[in-house]
Amino acid sequence: MPRLVECVPNVSEGRRGDVIDRLADAIRAVEGVRLLDRTSDVDHNRSVFTYAGEPDAVVRATHALVDLAFREVDMRTHKGEHPRLGAVDVVPFIPLAGVSMGECVDLAHRFGREVAERHQVPVYFYAKAAMRPERVRLPDIRKPEYEGLAALLESTHDPDAGPRRLHATAGAIVVGARPFLIAFNIELDSTDLKLAQRIAKEIRESSGGLPAVQARGFMLTDPPRVQVSMNLLDHTTTSLETVWREVETRANAAGVRVLRGELIGLLPLDAALQVTAGALKLDGFTRDRVIESHFLE
Amino acid sequence: MPRLVECVPNVSEGRRGDVIDRLADAIRAVEGVRLLDRTSDVDHNRSVFTYAGEPDAVVRATHALVDLAFREVDMRTHKGEHPRLGAVDVVPFIPLAGVSMGECVDLAHRFGREVAERHQVPVYFYAKAAMRPERVRLPDIRKPEYEGLAALLESTHDPDAGPRRLHATAGAIVVGARPFLIAFNIELDSTDLKLAQRIAKEIRESSGGLPAVQARGFMLTDPPRVQVSMNLLDHTTTSLETVWREVETRANAAGVRVLRGELIGLLPLDAALQVTAGALKLDGFTRDRVIESHFLE
Repeated sequence: MPRLVECVPNVSEGRRGDVIDRLADAIRAVEGVRLLDRTSDVDHNRSVFTYAGEPDAVVRATHALVDLAFREVDMRTHKGEHPRLGAVDVVPFIPLAGVSMGECVDLAHRFGREVAERHQVPVYFYAKAAMRPERVRLPDIRKPEYEGLAALLESTHDPDAGPRRLHATAGAIVVGARPFLIAFNIELDSTDLKLAQRIAKEIRESSGGLPAVQARGFMLTDPPRVQVSMNLLDHTTTSLETVWREVETRANAAGVRVLRGELIGLLPLDAALQVTAGALKLDGFTRDRVIESHFLE
Repeated sequence: MPRLVECVPNVSEGRRGDVIDRLADAIRAVEGVRLLDRTSDVDHNRSVFTYAGEPDAVVRATHALVDLAFREVDMRTHKGEHPRLGAVDVVPFIPLAGVSMGECVDLAHRFGREVAERHQVPVYFYAKAAMRPERVRLPDIRKPEYEGLAALLESTHDPDAGPRRLHATAGAIVVGARPFLIAFNIELDSTDLKLAQRIAKEIRESSGGLPAVQARGFMLTDPPRVQVSMNLLDHTTTSLETVWREVETRANAAGVRVLRGELIGLLPLDAALQVTAGALKLDGFTRDRVIESHFLE
């Protein structure tokens, strides 16, 4: 059984193509790591790298990325719309296969302490790796931004690792562990925005619906149709199969057909197989029943 | 994209555990090949090995298996209930991923001719690799069995490769290419055997139903329930998703619920993802959307 961890660092550089290419190359150069996606936004002046591999290899790749980003990005002159605390703004470790959340929390703590030591940079732990309840949510930590952080390092923003002193060019870094997030939309054969909004409200956790589900109703154009747009924050708690069924049941009850699903980005194998197992009502259908799973590195 | 072929040879030895272990070891010893399953039957005096890998590696493993089986099995003294022509009775090559059926036909022909040359054994090509219409079906080729084959080698059983002379100890060998076969059963919340038999009849190809589907209705005991038992001979023609829907629709129309599905053996990743895509109505959902597919050897 291969052990796979994903890491999705956000780097405060979205404009200089040559620098972004070299950041991607630094990740790719680490054996056993696959760069799965990279996206850059000029307005946000920010790039997101998605890669995965065996835990130690992912930590090596993340050090390589941080080393290079710290050399290339100077927060004293950085401008961009997206809130950020540093050159490498946030580093989440995500369990994909054969690795527990606890191991990813340990990985985040180990990596964060290594970075703090190596670069003398303040480090905050967030999400499942948070060491204080007020540091679970990323926006709460990120609120003062780079420009306001220096003044708070002795008070509310006392770091979890590293010095109580801002790294002049790299700022600070937020490191954590969280479940894989699946972005999934369901399109309805309807233009009734209120229906999509009602379904979204009924199924999302914040209104007492399904655990680990965020949902909103949207209107699409061309052709005009409504969509229930969701984030599944933990597919082992609430699966794609479950949200599909819950949305379909409610749409059908209102006399509306479900037209199609749309997955944004990549999916862990186990999340896809959950759907297979649910659709065919299979007991105990796990990845070892899939031939290719025996050929994973 | 990894290229994967499966091979499922049937060897006429199901009793001597040490020999069967060594046959399995011969397959495992080939780099890049994974032995996925092995089953032996004492009454049939027969073992089935299921392994997969990159095409050349699978051919190497199959030669290793044949070499050893030809040394160990003597058809002059072989007894068993299952019809067979030789020490290695049948060798099907099956495309799994990134390999076409045409390539597996070529692989079967290449392997068959190599075996004919190396061991001076008569070879018949069957299924998609058949060179004559009367040799598509395995039972037709196997009918005379080892004991009756010698007399027919100059007439109806003139081999497709190799000498017109039985290999004294190893008999003859049947080599071919065929699609992956999925054995899939659906259990109904009913004891109405006639219902299961009617559904089976309506969906199977031989009665004008779904292409590449074989189906029968069965009664299970403990608890008593009926089952529609199917072989999907080509999941790219008729998928698990399709047979599930066709069986469920007919059962529901008779006021009967579908209880569960049951998969026998392993499944190719693409067959599992077809179900995921169907259940969530996803357009263009292919294996590269699954993170782990980027970690296949």
